[in-house]
Amino acid sequence: MRNFVFHNPTKIIFGKGTVGQIGDEIKKYGVEKVLLLYGRGSIKRNGVYDSITSSLERNGISWVEVSGVKPNPVLSKVHEAIKVARREKVQAILAAGGGSVIDSAKAIAAGYYYSGDIWDAFLGKYKVDKALPIFTVLTISATGSEMNGGAVVTDEKTGLKLSFGSKATYPKVSIIDPTVQFTLPKEQTVYGAVDAIVHVLEYYFDGSKDRWLMDRVMESIIKTIMESAEILVNEPTNYEARANLAWSATLALNGLTSTGSFGGDWSSHYIEHALSAIYDIPHGAGLAIVTPAWMRYVMEEDIDKFRRFAKEIFGEEDPEKGIEAFKSWLKNIGAPVSLKDAGIPEKDIDKIAENAAFEAPFGTLKRLELEDIKKVLEIAAI
Amino acid sequence: MRNFVFHNPTKIIFGKGTVGQIGDEIKKYGVEKVLLLYGRGSIKRNGVYDSITSSLERNGISWVEVSGVKPNPVLSKVHEAIKVARREKVQAILAAGGGSVIDSAKAIAAGYYYSGDIWDAFLGKYKVDKALPIFTVLTISATGSEMNGGAVVTDEKTGLKLSFGSKATYPKVSIIDPTVQFTLPKEQTVYGAVDAIVHVLEYYFDGSKDRWLMDRVMESIIKTIMESAEILVNEPTNYEARANLAWSATLALNGLTSTGSFGGDWSSHYIEHALSAIYDIPHGAGLAIVTPAWMRYVMEEDIDKFRRFAKEIFGEEDPEKGIEAFKSWLKNIGAPVSLKDAGIPEKDIDKIAENAAFEAPFGTLKRLELEDIKKVLEIAAI
Repeated sequence: MRNFVFHNPTKIIFGKGTVGQIGDEIKKYGVEKVLLLYGRGSIKRNGVYDSITSSLERNGISWVEVSGVKPNPVLSKVHEAIKVARREKVQAILAAGGGSVIDSAKAIAAGYYYSGDIWDAFLGKYKVDKALPIFTVLTISATGSEMNGGAVVTDEKTGLKLSFGSKATYPKVSIIDPTVQFTLPKEQTVYGAVDAIVHVLEYYFDGSKDRWLMDRVMESIIKTIMESAEILVNEPTNYEARANLAWSATLALNGLTSTGSFGGDWSSHYIEHALSAIYDIPHGAGLAIVTPAWMRYVMEEDIDKFRRFAKEIFGEEDPEKGIEAFKSWLKNIGAPVSLKDAGIPEKDIDKIAENAAFEAPFGTLKRLELEDIKKVLEIAAI
Repeated sequence: MRNFVFHNPTKIIFGKGTVGQIGDEIKKYGVEKVLLLYGRGSIKRNGVYDSITSSLERNGISWVEVSGVKPNPVLSKVHEAIKVARREKVQAILAAGGGSVIDSAKAIAAGYYYSGDIWDAFLGKYKVDKALPIFTVLTISATGSEMNGGAVVTDEKTGLKLSFGSKATYPKVSIIDPTVQFTLPKEQTVYGAVDAIVHVLEYYFDGSKDRWLMDRVMESIIKTIMESAEILVNEPTNYEARANLAWSATLALNGLTSTGSFGGDWSSHYIEHALSAIYDIPHGAGLAIVTPAWMRYVMEEDIDKFRRFAKEIFGEEDPEKGIEAFKSWLKNIGAPVSLKDAGIPEKDIDKIAENAAFEAPFGTLKRLELEDIKKVLEIAAI
């Protein structure tokens, strides 16, 4: 097990009927005005918007709204919101949504204090050490952004989807009410589950050794997400499945699964970012396409771990059969598992690989260069 | 799954050679003088004292020492240290030791600001909401006190062993260097492992339902502690076993295993506190005696969960055989499993039960009164 630092100060309020607590939590920080950031209006249909605004009003907190954050969130929206935040002199960002909204909130909170273009943080040219306080009300369990300091945004001009992370952008308080997710479209539930599983896999298959506890914990998270997702595709209002999926997705990427690791491999994520940046497909769909292909490509680097995965998750003895079983599970639950499934032509592989290679070489289990990325995409083709 | 709040702001620095970072961490808080609290001198033999004091010196932090904290820490030592802390105007407590030292540090840190007797906090007459900042260097993995706000202390005058908990007494930073534990006596390693396992069991068997993720995570922690402890009784310097045991023991009681639960049953702990308060036996030894007896006594209240425990941990189908297997494991690893094993006469059962009943009724799986406690102790007799 490698040395590590674990420090996650985010307060999680979890459970039925908790959304209305958000104003009380924000008030504890002495905040009197927030920027309320959300997506394309689902929070107005499922009651979340009303719960939040009532709670803010009750606590004497005023707000200004920026809405329209879309999946695979874009830099222009971040820029727009930074301007509003400054003009309106807000003291905090309240993100009500999924990973796209929360990630955008982090970029806005950091950008508020930065005189240059906050894209510099994504390019590694600016180290974020100051940000407006962030509060979140989670509406879809997937990215884990509600309990970490990371953010992923796409610059529409260059087509690059990049990330940054900072201690300053951990949410102060995140509210996770699983009932809010009862009305999610089936695909969003599935893609969220896939995203969370792959977060765990990034740490599980990063080449680190002797993480006896974390290997078991990671298998626990994967099994629980699979069990919950299988129920939810048929029973979207099953509370226990929603709750277990939600808490699993949060813990998948809150620093716990990283403890003692190399920090994760992340190749599947890097390659996927090219897919969703270029084709605007859901991130979880892209991961379902890329991850099994990546697994097949790197399997020999740590065959014992792939054998363990096959055995523990699918009861298979053969590591290759474990990967096949994972791919079948993804397909059965409703995710695309090839470029073809997503309508992406094989001839685009070079273009996708070149986009992904912007951050290459990457990967800890196997260091991937442009040529490796192409090979992974070829495996993912059909 | 029940609603919960999870908020654990303690920063954990984990790994080989990390003790010397403590001064740097304390300095970040602007602290210039600390009370260095420790036990009966093992830190002077294993190099921890030298690493700590060098680190403090290097960071220009002065210190005053209070030593001699003993296992099953006592209130008189807490009182003594509070006087020193006030007289010397320290700005923080640095606890270097195991649960006894860290628990005492929490009582001292809280007592510093309280004009009455800090025992009031243990009696529930004073709610702790202010304390000196606490920093810890952990020397034995057992209680999990390095990453929570709880403390257990014995008042020698009344023979009562009680606890309190507060958000104010979470350590700011805890350093966990598993190599520090290479020289622990075998019994201490074993009793630490038992303590940590029983922390998990308190949450596992508290009657809460549908914690699909946490049930798996708790089984992961128990299996890893057992695996690590089995290695360490023969190879005390096995780093991976020390590291996995250490991280497991911390996570056993940092709030994670509690999420979605009734908050734990705690009957085994309440009953054990009477044993260690009266006979001054190690807490882990007392738990090894009480817990299997408690399990037998309450088994019918949640037979399915006891069946699951038997299956998942010991591969047994019969829930009763699972409890027997746990008892055998405890005995084989070197723990006493009956009052007789610990030299406690059966005729003392009434006295022990009456001491334990100070906090009765307790327990969430089954509410225990004085008569129930006697019955548990009778099962534990031989």
